[in-house]
Amino acid sequence: MHQIPQPLKSLIDSLKKLPGVGPKTAQRFMFHILNMPYEEVKELSSAILMAKKQIVTCSKCFCLTDVDPCNICSDQKRNNSILCVVENTIDVYTIENSKFFNGLYFVLGGSLSPIENITPEFIRIKELKKRIEEDKNIKEIIISTNLNLEGETTAMYIAKLLKNNPGINITRIGKGLPLGASINFADDITLKSSFENRKQI
Amino acid sequence: MHQIPQPLKSLIDSLKKLPGVGPKTAQRFMFHILNMPYEEVKELSSAILMAKKQIVTCSKCFCLTDVDPCNICSDQKRNNSILCVVENTIDVYTIENSKFFNGLYFVLGGSLSPIENITPEFIRIKELKKRIEEDKNIKEIIISTNLNLEGETTAMYIAKLLKNNPGINITRIGKGLPLGASINFADDITLKSSFENRKQI
Repeated sequence: MHQIPQPLKSLIDSLKKLPGVGPKTAQRFMFHILNMPYEEVKELSSAILMAKKQIVTCSKCFCLTDVDPCNICSDQKRNNSILCVVENTIDVYTIENSKFFNGLYFVLGGSLSPIENITPEFIRIKELKKRIEEDKNIKEIIISTNLNLEGETTAMYIAKLLKNNPGINITRIGKGLPLGASINFADDITLKSSFENRKQI
Repeated sequence: MHQIPQPLKSLIDSLKKLPGVGPKTAQRFMFHILNMPYEEVKELSSAILMAKKQIVTCSKCFCLTDVDPCNICSDQKRNNSILCVVENTIDVYTIENSKFFNGLYFVLGGSLSPIENITPEFIRIKELKKRIEEDKNIKEIIISTNLNLEGETTAMYIAKLLKNNPGINITRIGKGLPLGASINFADDITLKSSFENRKQI
């Protein structure tokens, strides 16, 4: 009996460590990689190692960055009186891409989930509290966690925790119907919020 | 507006080239990779490049191998009168793992699919014909393509193509119910085959 060649075995074993990748998907990835041009494979291989080597967590806002403090935290033109609290680094870049926000960020690194036992110690609640206490420029905190159960729980927890800071306005991003939505398919809570948040036209 | 750091962008772009990986999955893989221990990331990165560098196609059986001819083709203890024709290299190692087959293999590199326009030129039909003509040891060809539409089409095509070789017995792997199957859930064709292939007990 002959074994699968070692380089293939190592590749499949490594690929299986990615989330949601089982033996069949790992095989599919393997065949694809073997069929890719050499230059692309080299790029993939080095992109993986380079990201791991070069990416650090910003010591101020905790986003993933290749310089510390990150480009946003060290940008003097940003409005340092507004702090936008998000769950993950990717949310920072989603908001940045929309180009309407000029304040600073704080990345929690997740959201509270009593069901999955993710309690405040597992995300950066302590660090957020410290930042608010030390950074006297902050006048407003916009809690921009996701609008699902975990995100809402986290938002409520943070709002409660920080409400005793005088001079700091704590806000939550507005609920309403997204662009392109049908009234017909909207859920009750969103529809109610969108009526409450109505604007003069 | 600040852009996502270059190492993260490169990593997401590279991961998106894997089959079935969109922006969201690429992000999930990226976060997972950044959270993996450095040693594991190094292993993944080098496994990708090493497989691409070291794996070649066996010039005799066309399986993926790190030596040419592959360990199976060059094994003098194998029965060189039986050739098992499979779709992919992975099938070779699946059969090898079962430890009951001691013949040689031939990897087609796919299966015929008129719907997807995969005609005989796209798989190694020409090479198989050449191998049969040149290798005078072969007495039996077991067609072990998958038992789906494409595999059956391929099997029929090969059987027709090779039937004019006197002294070579062409067989197809047997259809029947797999271990653990319920009669209740079996399809008609499989059930019929399993009656036809019945054995004395």
